[in-house]
Amino acid sequence: MHTLPELLSSINDYADAQPFPAAPPELYEPCTYMLELGGKRLRPALLLMAYELFRDDFGQALPAAWAVELFHNFTLMHDDIMDAAPLRRGRPTVHTRWNTTTGILSGDVLLIHAYQHLARLPDAPIVHQLLRSFNRVATEVCEGQQLDLNFETRQDVQLTEYIRMIELKTAVLLGGALEMGALCARAEAQAVEHLYQFGRLAGIAFQIQDDLLDTYGDPAKFGKQVGGDILQNKKTFLVLKTFETASDGDARELAQWMQTPPETSGKVEAVRALFDRNGIPEQVAAEKQRFQDAAFEHLNAVDLPAERKSILWQTVEALFVREH
Amino acid sequence: MHTLPELLSSINDYADAQPFPAAPPELYEPCTYMLELGGKRLRPALLLMAYELFRDDFGQALPAAWAVELFHNFTLMHDDIMDAAPLRRGRPTVHTRWNTTTGILSGDVLLIHAYQHLARLPDAPIVHQLLRSFNRVATEVCEGQQLDLNFETRQDVQLTEYIRMIELKTAVLLGGALEMGALCARAEAQAVEHLYQFGRLAGIAFQIQDDLLDTYGDPAKFGKQVGGDILQNKKTFLVLKTFETASDGDARELAQWMQTPPETSGKVEAVRALFDRNGIPEQVAAEKQRFQDAAFEHLNAVDLPAERKSILWQTVEALFVREH
Repeated sequence: MHTLPELLSSINDYADAQPFPAAPPELYEPCTYMLELGGKRLRPALLLMAYELFRDDFGQALPAAWAVELFHNFTLMHDDIMDAAPLRRGRPTVHTRWNTTTGILSGDVLLIHAYQHLARLPDAPIVHQLLRSFNRVATEVCEGQQLDLNFETRQDVQLTEYIRMIELKTAVLLGGALEMGALCARAEAQAVEHLYQFGRLAGIAFQIQDDLLDTYGDPAKFGKQVGGDILQNKKTFLVLKTFETASDGDARELAQWMQTPPETSGKVEAVRALFDRNGIPEQVAAEKQRFQDAAFEHLNAVDLPAERKSILWQTVEALFVREH
Repeated sequence: MHTLPELLSSINDYADAQPFPAAPPELYEPCTYMLELGGKRLRPALLLMAYELFRDDFGQALPAAWAVELFHNFTLMHDDIMDAAPLRRGRPTVHTRWNTTTGILSGDVLLIHAYQHLARLPDAPIVHQLLRSFNRVATEVCEGQQLDLNFETRQDVQLTEYIRMIELKTAVLLGGALEMGALCARAEAQAVEHLYQFGRLAGIAFQIQDDLLDTYGDPAKFGKQVGGDILQNKKTFLVLKTFETASDGDARELAQWMQTPPETSGKVEAVRALFDRNGIPEQVAAEKQRFQDAAFEHLNAVDLPAERKSILWQTVEALFVREH
């Protein structure tokens, strides 16, 4: 078994050995740029960790791991166009640095290259299974992005719908990475399913935590501007929880704040106070904890010695903060 | 063996039995709309005809045939955004009827659905081979679109580069459809290669013919406005041939016409006269014929009775006009 740094190092070595073609540069340079923006390579690392639960030769699973990372970057490149995002990891997004046409076409070829790496695995039955998982998850991620877009203009989004959206848009890919790692290792169907559910539920918990930290995170640790979601009138888990559980008066007040422009003075403090007096952070933290606990129950249920699961367990646990 | 109308009917039945999911409608309705715009379904029909050279149960190959058609429609949906095309087959393009975001995301899910149909084939080794062919061709189509975009702003495009562009952008998919049909039927590698080359070379010939017909076609038969390429200053095969072979004076005159706006009076007549006095239509027709002949030599080389190949032969031959 290998540590997270060892796995990350192998992922980078694999990627370095499989550069994009040189020509046409207008197509492939944006792909290289996107991948070089970095990121934690969490999804390929999870895939390899799932593989290493069952087999030690994780090098076999590297093409699948890199396929998942390329797919993730494809979604980021196209989402950045749809969200008109100027920056990604502090640098210009592809459609900003080049143009929308480049963002579309280089994103397309990134997605196709993800499938190319899948096809590099030598065992046809495993490729067939991976292809089916990959297609299912990829379709769901598109559906999640569509729901997210729909929510921007809808005023009646329910919490259950929001959870479904984050599940599709981000959580199933974490589950899918673990599932694909287990499939590469020829794990039994039950273990594959437990690992998928572990990733899916942990992914939902992580997204709920992300909403919570945006308003209540330690500015020194969070890395983003605290209160950004409030300023941007985003319909986060906290907002939807408030609409579902707060008094009519507070729900109306929140709705009014959400009509104001981002630069409105005192907005973050007022909305945070409103959340506080309705017990929203505690409720949301409890909800997050429920998903997190449900996730780890699935990892627990994978029939292997705890020792074998410890690296995966610790890596996912480290994604969560202790106290809110 | 089945006739073209029988194959087309089965393709449509397969598609009708595999509708897109109902939700989210914002994602899938544009996919259904795009597919219902019609088109000749030439690529899936070619795939089934290649299959039927070797085996009679063409129903086995329908998922692969439909995958190729979905891929083709994915490229059209994204290309229409990149080309800012308002109309496709006389109706609003997806990004015009909805918006660019819809065109991007629905196109993405179309591409993923193409892979889903590939994965529906039951035999894993065949799926593995198809996936590799499909990925190779899909990558090349993106590269061809990029070259086409590059050519819009380049003034020094060579004929060989132009041929490479049309080869990648459109011809390899025709070759790929035939290749995949043969792979589904477990044909031998040599036959697979001959069929790929047949489609690729016929595709190049067809694109050259398309350029020729745009200026010299019979308006009653051609279906598009004759002279449209000249009005739009498109760098067609005829234009590039003129730059390579005409006198300096005529090359300069053509370059001047290509600086003028589409509505310039007398432009089509003047440019056509310029082509005529330089023997361009004859040269281009000869070039087209060379690719067409080379294509059919590959079909000829497939080691099967002529009778077995007649439907495929006639279907592709019917794409070409006799006289220019």
